[in-house]
Amino acid sequence: MLKDFETKKREDKAQITAEIKELQNKLLGQQQLLMKEKLPMIVLIEGWAAAGKGSLIKELISELDPRFYHVVSPKVLPEAEERYPFLYPYMSAIPVNGKVTFMDSGWMENVVRKYLRHEINKDEYRKRIRQVNEFERQLRDSGYIILKIFLHIAKTEQYERLYELAENPGTEWRVDREDLWQHKEYKRFMEAYDDFMDKTGDTLGWHILDGNRRKTAIRDALKLLVQRVERGIQEGRFEGVSLEEDFPLREMPVLSKVDLSPSMEDDEYKKELKTLQSRLSELHNIIYRKKIPVVLCYEGWDAAGKGGNIRRLTYALDPRGFDVHPTASPLPHEFNRHYLWRFWTRLPRTGHIAIYDRTWYGRVMVERLEGFCSEKEWQRAYHEINEFERMLTDWGAVVLKFWIHIDQDVQLERFTDRQNTPEKQWKITDEDWRNREKWDEYEIAVNEMLQKTSTKNAPWHIIESNDKKYARIKTLRIIVKALEKACDKHFQRMME
Amino acid sequence: MLKDFETKKREDKAQITAEIKELQNKLLGQQQLLMKEKLPMIVLIEGWAAAGKGSLIKELISELDPRFYHVVSPKVLPEAEERYPFLYPYMSAIPVNGKVTFMDSGWMENVVRKYLRHEINKDEYRKRIRQVNEFERQLRDSGYIILKIFLHIAKTEQYERLYELAENPGTEWRVDREDLWQHKEYKRFMEAYDDFMDKTGDTLGWHILDGNRRKTAIRDALKLLVQRVERGIQEGRFEGVSLEEDFPLREMPVLSKVDLSPSMEDDEYKKELKTLQSRLSELHNIIYRKKIPVVLCYEGWDAAGKGGNIRRLTYALDPRGFDVHPTASPLPHEFNRHYLWRFWTRLPRTGHIAIYDRTWYGRVMVERLEGFCSEKEWQRAYHEINEFERMLTDWGAVVLKFWIHIDQDVQLERFTDRQNTPEKQWKITDEDWRNREKWDEYEIAVNEMLQKTSTKNAPWHIIESNDKKYARIKTLRIIVKALEKACDKHFQRMME
Repeated sequence: MLKDFETKKREDKAQITAEIKELQNKLLGQQQLLMKEKLPMIVLIEGWAAAGKGSLIKELISELDPRFYHVVSPKVLPEAEERYPFLYPYMSAIPVNGKVTFMDSGWMENVVRKYLRHEINKDEYRKRIRQVNEFERQLRDSGYIILKIFLHIAKTEQYERLYELAENPGTEWRVDREDLWQHKEYKRFMEAYDDFMDKTGDTLGWHILDGNRRKTAIRDALKLLVQRVERGIQEGRFEGVSLEEDFPLREMPVLSKVDLSPSMEDDEYKKELKTLQSRLSELHNIIYRKKIPVVLCYEGWDAAGKGGNIRRLTYALDPRGFDVHPTASPLPHEFNRHYLWRFWTRLPRTGHIAIYDRTWYGRVMVERLEGFCSEKEWQRAYHEINEFERMLTDWGAVVLKFWIHIDQDVQLERFTDRQNTPEKQWKITDEDWRNREKWDEYEIAVNEMLQKTSTKNAPWHIIESNDKKYARIKTLRIIVKALEKACDKHFQRMME
Repeated sequence: MLKDFETKKREDKAQITAEIKELQNKLLGQQQLLMKEKLPMIVLIEGWAAAGKGSLIKELISELDPRFYHVVSPKVLPEAEERYPFLYPYMSAIPVNGKVTFMDSGWMENVVRKYLRHEINKDEYRKRIRQVNEFERQLRDSGYIILKIFLHIAKTEQYERLYELAENPGTEWRVDREDLWQHKEYKRFMEAYDDFMDKTGDTLGWHILDGNRRKTAIRDALKLLVQRVERGIQEGRFEGVSLEEDFPLREMPVLSKVDLSPSMEDDEYKKELKTLQSRLSELHNIIYRKKIPVVLCYEGWDAAGKGGNIRRLTYALDPRGFDVHPTASPLPHEFNRHYLWRFWTRLPRTGHIAIYDRTWYGRVMVERLEGFCSEKEWQRAYHEINEFERMLTDWGAVVLKFWIHIDQDVQLERFTDRQNTPEKQWKITDEDWRNREKWDEYEIAVNEMLQKTSTKNAPWHIIESNDKKYARIKTLRIIVKALEKACDKHFQRMME
C-alpha cells in the first residue's frame, strides 16, 4: 500500500512539473501577443514572509524574454518613498504598453505594515484603502491587465521556513527583524491581510494560493496568469466608463461672464509685488521646514502671460526648493503609459514646490479637441483627475490651479506683437494660430473643465490677465494666502 | 571728506545695481539664443558654507525663463548616491540641448568633504580627480558649455555669517554640523579646495569670486556668465578631437580568424548548464551581500542568439537583483544629451546586475555606419568609452563584454527560419536584412572596436555562437569565473 502511495506521489509530482513546463511555454507565446497588441500588464504578488514570493516570480518569468518584463521589489524601490505619496513608487513602476511588471509585494504590504506599526491611524488607513481602489481601477480602466495573488502559508510552516533560513549561514541574512516581527504577530497580520483583501477585492479580485505546497502553488499561479492573459488578449484593450462625480465642487462662472477689465497702476504693482515676493520667500522657508508639498498648476490661453506670471513667482523662491515642469506633447515612453504617469513621476518631494506650466488638464482640452484620446477617455478624466488631486491633498499637499484668462482681442494683439518683434518670434508658432481658430471649441472644453474639477480641496482660480500686472498680483496673493493657511493648519495638526 | 566718501559709495552701489540689471537682461536674450542653437550649459557654483551660493544662483536666474533652466543642489540629489559611482548624480542632472543646469555645489564639494572626512584615501582621491577631469572634458567635447565658479569668503566673514544665521530663529535651521565642522577646519578645507582646483583647472579653468562683497560677486558672476555664453554662441557647438589611447589593452583576434566550429552535445550542455546556473545563483547571493555591482554587455550580429543567451543567464538570477536593459534608438530626451547619459542613468546599484542588450558601443557601430554621429564623435568614443568603463571598474564593478559571433551563412539560415515560422516573425524586420547587406562594413567597425576597447579591466570576449549551446555555456563560464574572482578580491580587500 505504502509503495503504491509513494509511486502515486511521484507521478503526481512529475505531472505537476510537466504542467508547469507547458504553462511556461504557453506564457512565452502569450508574451509575444501582449507585445503585438501593446497591452500592458501588472502582476502583484503579495503574501507572508518566507512564503516563496521570490521563487514564485522566478518561475513565472523563467521562459519570458527579459526585455519585456521588469521585476520590482520593495528593496529596489526609490528610497525617497517617504517623501512622496505612498503609491508613488508603484505608479512609477508601471510598465509601458506591451510589457509586464511583476511586483514582489506592493501596496498591500506597505499599507498593512504601516498600519500595524501604528505609523498610520485608522482614518489614514481608510484613505489609503480608497486610494488603492482608485489606483487599481484607473489602471484597469486605461487598459492595464492586472492580476493580484496572495501567497499564503500557515504559521507553523512559516516557523519552519524562517528557522531553516536563519540556521543556514548562506541564507541567514535573508531573515530580518521585520520577518520575525511578522511571525510573532501572525494573528494580527492575518486579520489585517484579510481586512485589506476584503476591502480591495471588488474591482479586481484577489487570488489566494497555498504556499505550503510549493510546486502546486507555482502551477496554480501560472495557470491564473495564463488565463488572465488569455482573457485580456481575447477581450482586447479594456476601457472604463466615466463615473458619477461625488466631489464637493465650487461653483465657477462661465468664461464669457468673466469681467476682464481689472487692471493695476505701475506704482501700486511694484510696491505690492515686492511685499508679496518677500512674504512668499519667508513662506517658502516655512513650508520647506514643515515639509509641506506644494503643487501649482498653470493653464490658460496662448499668450495669456503664463510665463511672466510664473517668473514673478519663482523670483521669490529659493531655487533649490522648486521645479518648473513645462508640459509638451508626451514622449513615446510617456504616451505609452497611463496619461497621469508623467505627472506622478514629477511630483514634488515634501517641502518642495512643483510648478506645472500646463498640466494633466491637457487630457480634457487639447487631447479632447485634437482627438489624441477617445471620448470615453476624456470623459473619464474629470473623475480620475479629481481623485488624483484628492490623493495629493490627502497627502498634505497644497494644490492650486490657475486659469490665466484673456479675451480674443488681447490675444490677437499679443500674437501680432510677437510676430513683429524679432526677439519674441520664437514664442509664436503656426500651431498657436491654429489653436486660435478653435477658440470657441476650446472655450466649451475649458468651461466644462472648470465646472467639473473645481473641487473644494483643489479649486480653480480664474486670473484676469488682459492686464498682466493685475494678473500677477492676484496669483501671488492667492498663493500667499493658501500657503499661510497651510502652515497654520499644519501647525494646528501638530498641536493636536 | 567723509560725506564725499559716503556719496561715492552710494553711487558705486547704485552703479553695480544698474550693471546687474543690465547683465540679467542680456542673459535673458542669450538664453533664447542657447535654445535656438540647442546649446546645453552647466554652471557649477562651488564655495564655502554661507558664502552665498544660493543667493548668487537666485540672481543669476532671476530674469530667465524657468522652463529652460534647472537648479540642482546636493540636498535634492538622489539619496541613493552612495550606491552609485560618485559622479552619478551630476551626470544624471546634465541638461538637454538648449537648457541650462545650475549646480549649487557639486563634484568638488563631494570629493573634498569625503577626503577630509577620511572616507576616501589618497589613492581614491587621485582617482576621483582624474574622473572629474574626464567627466568635464567629455561633456565639453560633446558641446556642453561649462562655467566653474568658486565663491570665496574669509574665515572671519564665515564666522560672522554663520553666527548671524544661527542666532536668528528663522534661519537657525540653515546651519548644520557640516558647516560648523568646515568652519573649525577652515585651514584644512582651504588647502583641500586649493589642491582640488589646482588639479582640475587645466581643461576648464576655475573662476574665484570674492564672496565678502555680495553685490560685486553677483555682478562679476553675471559678467562671467554672459561672457561665457557669448563666446559659446559665437564659437558654436564645440567638438573635441579624439585622444591617444593610454589603456592597457588585450590583444584580440580579427573576426575572420575566429574558428566558429565549436559545438556541444545536448547531454553535456544540459548537465553543465545546470551546474553553472546553480553556481551563478549562489554567486548572485554573495555579490548582493558584498554589494559588488556587475555590468554585463551583450553585442553581436542580428540573430546571433543574444536573447536566448541572456535568458539562460537570468534564469539563474534572483529577479529582484538584476535588470535587463534593451537598447534601441535613443528617445528625444536621450538623443539631446551626452550619448552616455542613458547608460549612466541605467547603471546598477551596488550588489545588483545590469545586463545591457546592446550597449554604448552602438556609437562605434550603427551610429558610425549610419552617420548618426560625426566621424569626430565616433573616433573620440573609443577613448571616452574606455574612460567610462575604467570609472566603473574603479568603482568596484565587474564589467564583462560579449561579442556574440556567427558567420553569414548561419545568419541567413536563422533569418529564413524566422521568416518562415509564424511565432518568430516578430523577431525579423526589414532593417535586419538591410544591416545584413552591410556585413562587411560592420565587420571593419567591430574589429576596430575590439582592438581599441578590450582593456584589461573590461575585456571583450568573443563568443562563438554558430552553436548556441556552446555559446551559452561559454558565456556562463566566463561570468561565473569573473564573479568568483571578484568575490575573492573583495574578500581580500576587506581583510587588508
